[in-house]
Amino acid sequence: MKKAILLLSVVLISGLVSAQPGLAPKVEPLPEGFKPASTNTFISVYPGVNAQTRQAIFRVSAPDAKTVQLQLGGNHDMKKDENGVWWFTTDPQVVGFHYYSIAIDGVPVMDRGSKAYFGSNWESSGIEIPEGPEGDYYRFNKNIPHGQVRSILYWSAVNGMERHVNVYVPAEYEKNPGKKYPVLYLVHGWGENEDGWSVQGHMANIMDGLIESGKAVPMIIVMPSGDIQTNSDVRQASGNITDIYIKDLIPFIDNTFRTFTDREHRAMAGLSRGGMQTTMTVFSNMDKFAWMGTFSGFFMGGMGRPGTEAPSVETAFNGVFKDPAAFDKQINLLFISTGTEERSPKEQVESLKTHGIKNIVFHESQGTAHEWLTWRRALNDFAPRLFK
Amino acid sequence: MKKAILLLSVVLISGLVSAQPGLAPKVEPLPEGFKPASTNTFISVYPGVNAQTRQAIFRVSAPDAKTVQLQLGGNHDMKKDENGVWWFTTDPQVVGFHYYSIAIDGVPVMDRGSKAYFGSNWESSGIEIPEGPEGDYYRFNKNIPHGQVRSILYWSAVNGMERHVNVYVPAEYEKNPGKKYPVLYLVHGWGENEDGWSVQGHMANIMDGLIESGKAVPMIIVMPSGDIQTNSDVRQASGNITDIYIKDLIPFIDNTFRTFTDREHRAMAGLSRGGMQTTMTVFSNMDKFAWMGTFSGFFMGGMGRPGTEAPSVETAFNGVFKDPAAFDKQINLLFISTGTEERSPKEQVESLKTHGIKNIVFHESQGTAHEWLTWRRALNDFAPRLFK
Repeated sequence: MKKAILLLSVVLISGLVSAQPGLAPKVEPLPEGFKPASTNTFISVYPGVNAQTRQAIFRVSAPDAKTVQLQLGGNHDMKKDENGVWWFTTDPQVVGFHYYSIAIDGVPVMDRGSKAYFGSNWESSGIEIPEGPEGDYYRFNKNIPHGQVRSILYWSAVNGMERHVNVYVPAEYEKNPGKKYPVLYLVHGWGENEDGWSVQGHMANIMDGLIESGKAVPMIIVMPSGDIQTNSDVRQASGNITDIYIKDLIPFIDNTFRTFTDREHRAMAGLSRGGMQTTMTVFSNMDKFAWMGTFSGFFMGGMGRPGTEAPSVETAFNGVFKDPAAFDKQINLLFISTGTEERSPKEQVESLKTHGIKNIVFHESQGTAHEWLTWRRALNDFAPRLFK
Repeated sequence: MKKAILLLSVVLISGLVSAQPGLAPKVEPLPEGFKPASTNTFISVYPGVNAQTRQAIFRVSAPDAKTVQLQLGGNHDMKKDENGVWWFTTDPQVVGFHYYSIAIDGVPVMDRGSKAYFGSNWESSGIEIPEGPEGDYYRFNKNIPHGQVRSILYWSAVNGMERHVNVYVPAEYEKNPGKKYPVLYLVHGWGENEDGWSVQGHMANIMDGLIESGKAVPMIIVMPSGDIQTNSDVRQASGNITDIYIKDLIPFIDNTFRTFTDREHRAMAGLSRGGMQTTMTVFSNMDKFAWMGTFSGFFMGGMGRPGTEAPSVETAFNGVFKDPAAFDKQINLLFISTGTEERSPKEQVESLKTHGIKNIVFHESQGTAHEWLTWRRALNDFAPRLFK
């Protein structure tokens, strides 16, 4: 009987393999010190990463291609061996998550060794360069209880279409059917989507740890799409994103989850473009939010770029900072963060502090740029400051 | 101020676009009657589908490639125009979801117009051929309440690693904190993963409709990974899948959700290899399940294939069918389904009926093969029969 099961499962499997060579191909073993990246599909040996040297090795089988390039922080020519397999080993990389692609005869495509990570508005390859113990806060910890990320479709009247939202609830949520929770609205950046914070950002691991250790208050975290149009099928999508958040999303969440609905229990934050959406939304709805964060995000315009006006603390955002005491009375926390290797809003933060704003925190991620390690660190620093 | 926001957002956006040309390229308009496939990324115009003719049109920009093929139920040579863009328009397709890939100079890769769908053990392209009103049961219905699909990591002691599981809870679950629910364990097939039922299968739309209309009992649906190893990073993964389901997953679910824990309130079903896992698991744990389904799945071995033994109803599965009355007393429903365009277990079903098994239902999906429309239809027919 066992033999029959085995035989038949082979038959079933081969029936499923159509044009795509889905069975794991036999490949060369990884060099000493390398292991498969955690971002690979589970059957993929390549790309491999070396935790000591922080190098990555890439492999593409393309016997008939004229050129193959690795696109990872620039274009790198891969080298073809006698079997038609192309190779490249990188210099040491910054730890954390990086997008990459493979260009076959000039066409940038996903490396089939990688799982898909939505970035730059397409399904991209990604590679995680492992970190030492410092990275424990964003890895799965089997010794603590775990929250859930809930995938939900809701109807947007503003937008005239269904929209997808991911909602993190803390582990204790199920066990306390009478308890209400504060809510953080957490938005992704341009080119990514509502899965970014939980997939690339490992937000559930970060929050599980912060809540279990008592560093952060148990909270619900709502991760919506930050794009007006989210479905290629619906070309007539319209509305502005602040309206969608305020008129459709917040009422839906407050109606679906056990939330506190007053402004003292509602925060909003976002990375990059999501930071811009946070300032747009919070500063025009001060009756609804008391906490906010912008990670590597737009802040106060200008930032010294030629061709952009640099508004003064008096005039920025329709004068929201004009009276520092009034601002501090309304906003309990204005958290602004950046990586040290990207353009910094440090000067703006200083000018706000000099102007007299007190409820402001500036966070810098050392050695990182506009990338996920910067944002994992920002969330890890930001979340414990909320709702206290 | 608005100008500054616009200018800066352009600066931020361009800073994010590294090697990948993520901004939507200007492309040729779709031919009359075609619109972007619902399976596209939201900025992608191509591939396009024609709901009337059920044709699809594909576009790949690859000026330097020697050959480009569309791999969709076979290999189709695409034709290059004077701008280096390759084109192909298909014959009429079966409605529903189909995987496809693009081969650039012989290398099969994902089409960047498509979202990623895990199939054949890689991130594949997919295209949904729209159906008429018959398909309403698997589309989002804005007029009814919606359940949630919860993404959860749990620790497997059998396996020695964390595992991912998706759990559907009905819309009413949040509103009835004292109510318990029956549970269906629903498994994917070979080469797909635990997201398959909710992403390719639209199971939440199907269940929302069945529950709202009163056709199906409100139930929890647990969709685990059916692979032993699910993470490229963990090479030592071991254990057998039935042990993982029985010893790790079921206790975790019963401890985390408000479930009935007796066998009369627990069902298992799966498609393809998941059907095989269902028979392996249920028939060796008859004290834990009273309802079962196998969709396009392994059943009773053989099926007339040369080289495989065809066990008799007396001997199959260690004689579970030997005493038909005893079988019917234990199993309330044995649901077996298939598409008419794939290998059918019809003969086995007939032999079981002739043998005297009464609690058996056979479901055929007209005109479909080993594909998602077959399985959407199967779930839609199966779920209303459970827990009654």
